[in-house]
Amino acid sequence: MEPYHIDRTALEHFCTHVFIALGLSEEEAVDSSEILVSADARGIASHGVARLWRYENGLRLGIMSGGIQPTILRETPISLVLDANGAMGMSLSRKTMDQVIEKAKVSGVGFASIRNSNHFGIAGYYSEMAARSDMIGIAMTNTAALGVPTFGTTAMFGTNPIAVAIPGHEGKLFSLDMSTTGVTRGKIEVYNREGHPLPSGWAVDPTGAVTSDAARLLDDMLYQRGGGLLPLGGAGEELGGHKGYGLAVLVDMMTAILSGGTFGKSVKDSEATSARVCHFFGAIRLDLFRDPDELKNDVDALLSELNETPVAEGHKRVLWAGQKEQEAEARSDVEGVPLSANVVSQLKSIGKELGIVFPLPLSK
Amino acid sequence: MEPYHIDRTALEHFCTHVFIALGLSEEEAVDSSEILVSADARGIASHGVARLWRYENGLRLGIMSGGIQPTILRETPISLVLDANGAMGMSLSRKTMDQVIEKAKVSGVGFASIRNSNHFGIAGYYSEMAARSDMIGIAMTNTAALGVPTFGTTAMFGTNPIAVAIPGHEGKLFSLDMSTTGVTRGKIEVYNREGHPLPSGWAVDPTGAVTSDAARLLDDMLYQRGGGLLPLGGAGEELGGHKGYGLAVLVDMMTAILSGGTFGKSVKDSEATSARVCHFFGAIRLDLFRDPDELKNDVDALLSELNETPVAEGHKRVLWAGQKEQEAEARSDVEGVPLSANVVSQLKSIGKELGIVFPLPLSK
Repeated sequence: MEPYHIDRTALEHFCTHVFIALGLSEEEAVDSSEILVSADARGIASHGVARLWRYENGLRLGIMSGGIQPTILRETPISLVLDANGAMGMSLSRKTMDQVIEKAKVSGVGFASIRNSNHFGIAGYYSEMAARSDMIGIAMTNTAALGVPTFGTTAMFGTNPIAVAIPGHEGKLFSLDMSTTGVTRGKIEVYNREGHPLPSGWAVDPTGAVTSDAARLLDDMLYQRGGGLLPLGGAGEELGGHKGYGLAVLVDMMTAILSGGTFGKSVKDSEATSARVCHFFGAIRLDLFRDPDELKNDVDALLSELNETPVAEGHKRVLWAGQKEQEAEARSDVEGVPLSANVVSQLKSIGKELGIVFPLPLSK
Repeated sequence: MEPYHIDRTALEHFCTHVFIALGLSEEEAVDSSEILVSADARGIASHGVARLWRYENGLRLGIMSGGIQPTILRETPISLVLDANGAMGMSLSRKTMDQVIEKAKVSGVGFASIRNSNHFGIAGYYSEMAARSDMIGIAMTNTAALGVPTFGTTAMFGTNPIAVAIPGHEGKLFSLDMSTTGVTRGKIEVYNREGHPLPSGWAVDPTGAVTSDAARLLDDMLYQRGGGLLPLGGAGEELGGHKGYGLAVLVDMMTAILSGGTFGKSVKDSEATSARVCHFFGAIRLDLFRDPDELKNDVDALLSELNETPVAEGHKRVLWAGQKEQEAEARSDVEGVPLSANVVSQLKSIGKELGIVFPLPLSK
């Protein structure tokens, strides 16, 4: 249980004021705030307001800035390719997904691929936008290279998430949002802080051997000495690591190669530059295939069937993709958005510098 | 090294004659033969002519039959939904992918979802058809339930493969074709025959605990006592098993739920009935996004970069998805298609019953 719970709207307003003070337009500030807070509301704290300082830092240093307009590189009734020119990833992605959904409303399907963008938060935010419009929603992004190919020693792709959402009735969404590496760097940082050895199958050292040493791994990754995260499925081919590797490369193809952006090992974060990542969005109307109501009946039936799977000894429930996050979001809307004491103190200090008051918690 | 190598065309002709003798139309027979043999040519013996006896059996028992026409359930310029009515899966899938490609040629994109079909062979065959037409090709199928959800004890989904292919220049294809379980039943059968314990992360017993006992697992799966294969990522969430589980359910959504077919635990093979599986196909034209030649330059660059990854100690090469299969196919076209002695003797015996002569091997 996180110790602080903050009213969702109040937390969004706080972030919006911070972003405006840092030079974003009102629209950019509102979009970015809503998307960051939605991550915390769903229990994905790693992608939420804990990242506000990075934006503060980026905007202060001029690595990111507000008001940048993308360039249209190619457009058809069903597709859009943009050069973001370094625009704010979350706001541009939300607007682009809106356009993709509009294209799908008219033509049945819409796709967009964007190059030279910035981090866009949680991929599932965008796929779910389409799903709430009776479409299959898809979102992907490439990220700074941290992942090592099967039988390799050095990072050649990012954690490259894939998100797909398909609606049931009454707001229920099958919503898969997964990095294609086994874990992300954030997880390694947690193990390092807690002094735990890494489970076998998460990462390799610069010789390509599986490592359990979180501190050394983080250091090797930071200084690009080799080693890095393993793809979903772990080391070698025995548990299917080559499949996770293939999925990660697929994301690079759909994001960077469709848009003419930066791919593979060349995607890099540093103190002075942002990674200039690439995104892909898709929306496919359900009624291309079936009556959406009937289709959603079957989505509900499948999800219920999965929940009724007999549970393994020592465990409590069998869930489906997105269920935990949807339950967390419903709780957050009643009880407030959960934040750790660390994050609250970080936000208060950002607010103090800018003269913006952090909201009182609903509970502490 | 397999001991027998058979000329590809001769092997296709042999299978075609067998299928015709069993009652398929010439078109169905040719399609099915070419698709089965293409699996062997690529080194995927599990999905090749070793399955001919199953078709012989199915066609003799009337579980499958030739000449069945599908029903169109819904069609738009960019989509097609079919009830296969139990038609031969490989031939219907090839024809459907041809239609999907035609739709994409006219409209930029094409999708199809099919219910009540039969096994369609290797998913990658269909995704690559689209990729060879300067499109992103997608193919999926659900299969008989053998896979156990994260924290569950019983099979609720199939090995549900996903295939995506994207072309480079000169016939090179990034071609991912992966089951969404860690391994397939075929792999468990090999370990059982060789008396090896199963690696941790492949399968669970009827209590949901990880098992290494291949013989008992196969028996439990056969009699549906619980237990089964783990999703890509293995047991629990530590290595990402919930992601593989999500991908498997996604395939059920795209195949069975889009078409109104059978999903989840209800998809069953038995001696007397075929599983009536469902498929999904997609084709997305590259020029929706970029000039295809420029796009392929980048595909080639990324694939070369991956091949140049420094190699882990004890290993020889870093490959990309589809590379091993494309190299094998090039060898097969020169040296003949590799077949094991067992499979050759099985084919000879099928041929003998039907009065069809098996071709002489190019080498033995």
